[in-house]
Amino acid sequence: MTYAAIEAGGTKFVCSVGDAQGGLLDQFTFPTTVPGETLGRVIHFLQGHAGDLAAIGIGSFGPIDTCPQSPSYGYITSTPKPNWQSVNFLGQLKAHFQLPIAWTTDVNAAAYGEYSLGAGRQVRSLVYYTIGTGIGGGAIQAGRFIGGLSHPEMGHMRVQVHPDDAFPGHCPFHQTCLEGLASGPAIAARMGRPASDLPADDPFWDIEAYYLAQALVNTSLILAPEMIILGGGVMKQGHLLDRVRAQFESLTAGYIKTPTPEDYIQGPALQDNAATIGCFALAREAAQGHFPAKD
Amino acid sequence: MTYAAIEAGGTKFVCSVGDAQGGLLDQFTFPTTVPGETLGRVIHFLQGHAGDLAAIGIGSFGPIDTCPQSPSYGYITSTPKPNWQSVNFLGQLKAHFQLPIAWTTDVNAAAYGEYSLGAGRQVRSLVYYTIGTGIGGGAIQAGRFIGGLSHPEMGHMRVQVHPDDAFPGHCPFHQTCLEGLASGPAIAARMGRPASDLPADDPFWDIEAYYLAQALVNTSLILAPEMIILGGGVMKQGHLLDRVRAQFESLTAGYIKTPTPEDYIQGPALQDNAATIGCFALAREAAQGHFPAKD
Repeated sequence: MTYAAIEAGGTKFVCSVGDAQGGLLDQFTFPTTVPGETLGRVIHFLQGHAGDLAAIGIGSFGPIDTCPQSPSYGYITSTPKPNWQSVNFLGQLKAHFQLPIAWTTDVNAAAYGEYSLGAGRQVRSLVYYTIGTGIGGGAIQAGRFIGGLSHPEMGHMRVQVHPDDAFPGHCPFHQTCLEGLASGPAIAARMGRPASDLPADDPFWDIEAYYLAQALVNTSLILAPEMIILGGGVMKQGHLLDRVRAQFESLTAGYIKTPTPEDYIQGPALQDNAATIGCFALAREAAQGHFPAKD
Repeated sequence: MTYAAIEAGGTKFVCSVGDAQGGLLDQFTFPTTVPGETLGRVIHFLQGHAGDLAAIGIGSFGPIDTCPQSPSYGYITSTPKPNWQSVNFLGQLKAHFQLPIAWTTDVNAAAYGEYSLGAGRQVRSLVYYTIGTGIGGGAIQAGRFIGGLSHPEMGHMRVQVHPDDAFPGHCPFHQTCLEGLASGPAIAARMGRPASDLPADDPFWDIEAYYLAQALVNTSLILAPEMIILGGGVMKQGHLLDRVRAQFESLTAGYIKTPTPEDYIQGPALQDNAATIGCFALAREAAQGHFPAKD
């Protein structure tokens, strides 16, 4: 038996087929274009493995509808991405494959990958943030995704603007929310060059860390997770994780009891594969009738 | 069979005994003094009903240890309240009563009361905030309390300071966190009189609403609950709930899809009894072996 993992990003799709032990059998990566073409390529790829597949796991860019009782369950909903509003992603796959399909956000999938398979993780709750083109977060507690009405949209939380930061913010909805201040495009717009081109000793990095640390403080106060993982392109700056840890310590002022910052705030053990490995793990849950979790 | 509910506040304790239908049989309220005297009165009250009791539910001020695997499970831990640090609250009750005991925070208990018995609540997830001497929040998703490493401490989240507010903040740990800006003592320190003495048309109320609305925005983005309930002394101002709803609408700028503000942000259906009724409900769960929830 094999499983399929669809990591559906706004820029590219990574479609994978793997065995029950998590070994990769086939993988197909292509740019995200219009829905018909993109989902057509997903379906074509999966049809090449259809006889062997036991289940499919999907982690999608969003916002998406993750509420099984909703008429639009399985849709990409109000995304700003052109052509992708109100696309019945899950329905199109179900029309071609009579298989259990797990459906969640890309960051939930990454969180699940780290939760279930990340090396040495011995936790029952964690939060995964991606800091890249956008900022998003997924959270798990006791095997279940956090969410009720919908899935979290942690990237748009409000943070205090750093006194040395005159940037007006980059979010079309909220200007100076976390994503508007600290995402890759916000850094590029502010600094006039991509984050990857900023030297490690640029004073801006402490401002970036200040914003990310605030998000982690609020996350800790609201969810009290056992671990927070920071992934995504901006976190490729090797020095940034320690800066965030230091600012987190400073901001919490000893009020929150957590493990050491090194244990509590970590990079992804699965590197860039967290979402795909999470989709595999969710596909296995779906094959066993455990997705969505019964309450 | 009867159940006991211990609403353990920093100012007063409300101890109640009720029947299986939620009817109140006996209640004893007294001020919170030193731990020995206070817990002695709890134990004495419960001993008067011990032959009938099936279980006890406790909702305590905190921070408390709610992790069953922890050596200090059942303790009040690092509270700033004098004499109450490292008090083994649960252990002292267990030494006197061989009964199932549910142990959680006061705000979790209030959240559970609204979740399980609030009139007309048909939700599977909600958040309960108390805005009073302190600010605290409890959250439930699918019958389970939110929390991993510990319980939430939502009152200390960071919010943006209103441009018209020069108050330096009142929190000894974080100055301008939510509690430092918007709790009852913060209002009194800023305005020179208690919140209850401020007229309804004082311009400050829109600043207060701005802070509370920011907390609700962050809560919605991180937890995506189906409903948020605002209780506590400051919310006795009848005009404040609508002000918070209006600011919430303004701050989310249409990004978060929620029910109408009137449905999404509500006052407590159980008024000041939410925590006691929640403790009864938790005691019943404990009597049936369902507390803490098995995962």
